[in-house]
Amino acid sequence: MGSLEVVERTTTGWAATDPSGILSPYTYTLRNTGPEDIYVKVISCGICHTDIHQVKNDLGMSNYPMVPGHEVIGEVVEVGSEVTKFRVGEVVGVGCLVGCCGNCHPCKSEIEQYCNKKIWSYNDVYTDGNPTQGGFASATVVNQKFVVKIPDGMAPEQAAPLLCAGVTVYSPLHHFGLKQSGLRGGILGLGGVGHMGVKIAKAMGHHVTVISSSNKKREEALEHLGADEYLVSSDSSRMQEVVDSLDYIIDTIPVFHHLEPYLSLLKVDGKLILMGVINTPLQFITPMVMLGRKTITGSFIGSIKETEEMLEFCKEKGFTSTIEVVKLDYINTAFERLEKNDVRYRFVVDVAGSKLDQ
Amino acid sequence: MGSLEVVERTTTGWAATDPSGILSPYTYTLRNTGPEDIYVKVISCGICHTDIHQVKNDLGMSNYPMVPGHEVIGEVVEVGSEVTKFRVGEVVGVGCLVGCCGNCHPCKSEIEQYCNKKIWSYNDVYTDGNPTQGGFASATVVNQKFVVKIPDGMAPEQAAPLLCAGVTVYSPLHHFGLKQSGLRGGILGLGGVGHMGVKIAKAMGHHVTVISSSNKKREEALEHLGADEYLVSSDSSRMQEVVDSLDYIIDTIPVFHHLEPYLSLLKVDGKLILMGVINTPLQFITPMVMLGRKTITGSFIGSIKETEEMLEFCKEKGFTSTIEVVKLDYINTAFERLEKNDVRYRFVVDVAGSKLDQ
Repeated sequence: MGSLEVVERTTTGWAATDPSGILSPYTYTLRNTGPEDIYVKVISCGICHTDIHQVKNDLGMSNYPMVPGHEVIGEVVEVGSEVTKFRVGEVVGVGCLVGCCGNCHPCKSEIEQYCNKKIWSYNDVYTDGNPTQGGFASATVVNQKFVVKIPDGMAPEQAAPLLCAGVTVYSPLHHFGLKQSGLRGGILGLGGVGHMGVKIAKAMGHHVTVISSSNKKREEALEHLGADEYLVSSDSSRMQEVVDSLDYIIDTIPVFHHLEPYLSLLKVDGKLILMGVINTPLQFITPMVMLGRKTITGSFIGSIKETEEMLEFCKEKGFTSTIEVVKLDYINTAFERLEKNDVRYRFVVDVAGSKLDQ
Repeated sequence: MGSLEVVERTTTGWAATDPSGILSPYTYTLRNTGPEDIYVKVISCGICHTDIHQVKNDLGMSNYPMVPGHEVIGEVVEVGSEVTKFRVGEVVGVGCLVGCCGNCHPCKSEIEQYCNKKIWSYNDVYTDGNPTQGGFASATVVNQKFVVKIPDGMAPEQAAPLLCAGVTVYSPLHHFGLKQSGLRGGILGLGGVGHMGVKIAKAMGHHVTVISSSNKKREEALEHLGADEYLVSSDSSRMQEVVDSLDYIIDTIPVFHHLEPYLSLLKVDGKLILMGVINTPLQFITPMVMLGRKTITGSFIGSIKETEEMLEFCKEKGFTSTIEVVKLDYINTAFERLEKNDVRYRFVVDVAGSKLDQ
């Protein structure tokens, strides 16, 4: 077990310093490893579309300098005196959150992602008053409650996208009782979360239909991702053929779209699960939900408990993400390419191989 | 047990003959009591807002002459040779449906109200090719599957509104796991279904908040219906005080309204259950559902099985509806008054006391 030293420790990451969102090397102080903390040396970190919104201040809530990254895989190098869950040398993960109040109903129900006082892994303020910084950095210090064990034998770069995109898809399927084999699911949109949706739904034994606005991703969906069907939403006769056929749709479209065509594809009691943060109001007419007791809902990442379950599920199923591994000095290009959807399907930064500390 | 005679039998009801919706006496043929049928002499029949839409052809699907009425209580006067569930002399109920396919997934799951081939109790065509006619008539013949037993000791006029308004509220609370005591519910709108919502939720032991656009119904809600709180939706400071506090809202508003103020009142995992058929699209922004895993859903009457359960529940709780009993010759006035919301809260027609056959 590592020792606790009261010294000021620094680390180097890549930070955005203004809303241009351009990242560059930045050295900052890490807190000392408190009794419940884990000091993690970062190995890999996935790039999520949210990172772009954050570094560019798209939500108007960004503080700089900001080191993004919330799909963090690393190795435990030191643990606090009261840490019982982890040991030095273990490979662990840190996702979107690093804190919560612990007292509210969601916290007590182990769905701390819905705590109103949750603390984000970056662009937030920790309980000590210091800014939180993300995973595109050599190291991070995180309370053990927000650290998950990566199953033995799972490659760090494979595990990274599971910590956000993976659990974002797994959590609603788990929560809404949609895990059993044989269900028919739809995945609307084929970006980072959509690709993960196809793979996780297939791993659960579902019949998966990818629904897209064009034919462009047909081969991708059917041949590379293993989807069972591909449906072009503008093909009204084909859409008509498959009404009332799906148990759920995971809707990853991040912009305004009409919900009726997709609601009509759902069976009685079917669920439309929204994943895209869209501030333009979406619309539906009430008979579309009432006459089949259909549900419009949404979900937001997943809990630590669900993350652990999901990692075990992926390990058991031999699940792999389709990723492109890059170094940190490529991160600005990666952000640009991601913005154009030019990646299959998730960038993962090889942080340990980026020689940050040299 | 009554005998089966192959004679042409007629009955007299009050029918609309054109989209003016004015009802007048009308005599028509009833089918003979087939092996699975029950011949019911009508005692009482509730008036539902849907009846107005139907007689006035508001949905563009009306056929005349049309005898409305789908909250029918009557006495069994004859049963078919294969009827095992009912005996002559029993008091029974017939609701919105008198037929379904029996083979689809909803039918096999005993949620026949979601069968695409369901047959409405009036303004529909029965399997024999004849129009179905409703409960504002001396008698009706119904397949036993669509008949429910009225619990002993429950007054017919009290039972009538339960068959549509009652089960419409009971069904989603049952289906979505919202029956346990101690929950906090909101009832939006205080018409026929809303009033039933307050009473049924209170009978379940819930803390009930009536939400209304004005103060007009405050006394009504708190003193006559027994609601615990009354919230005026335009009182933004009060609305702000109760955000994140409700487990569900039953939304009975039948016209366009903004959903955000009500979604914000729901706790994490809270459910907004829509009951009003609204063909103007309703709107919401996705973070409002995603960030609390909230559900927008709707529900449509209830199954025969749920109706039976609900009747037993109401019997056990000593439940009473607040009704105004009228005779059939008052029905046109009653329709007019209902259209102006001038009734506390449901009209029930004393059909047996209306001397239709004289």
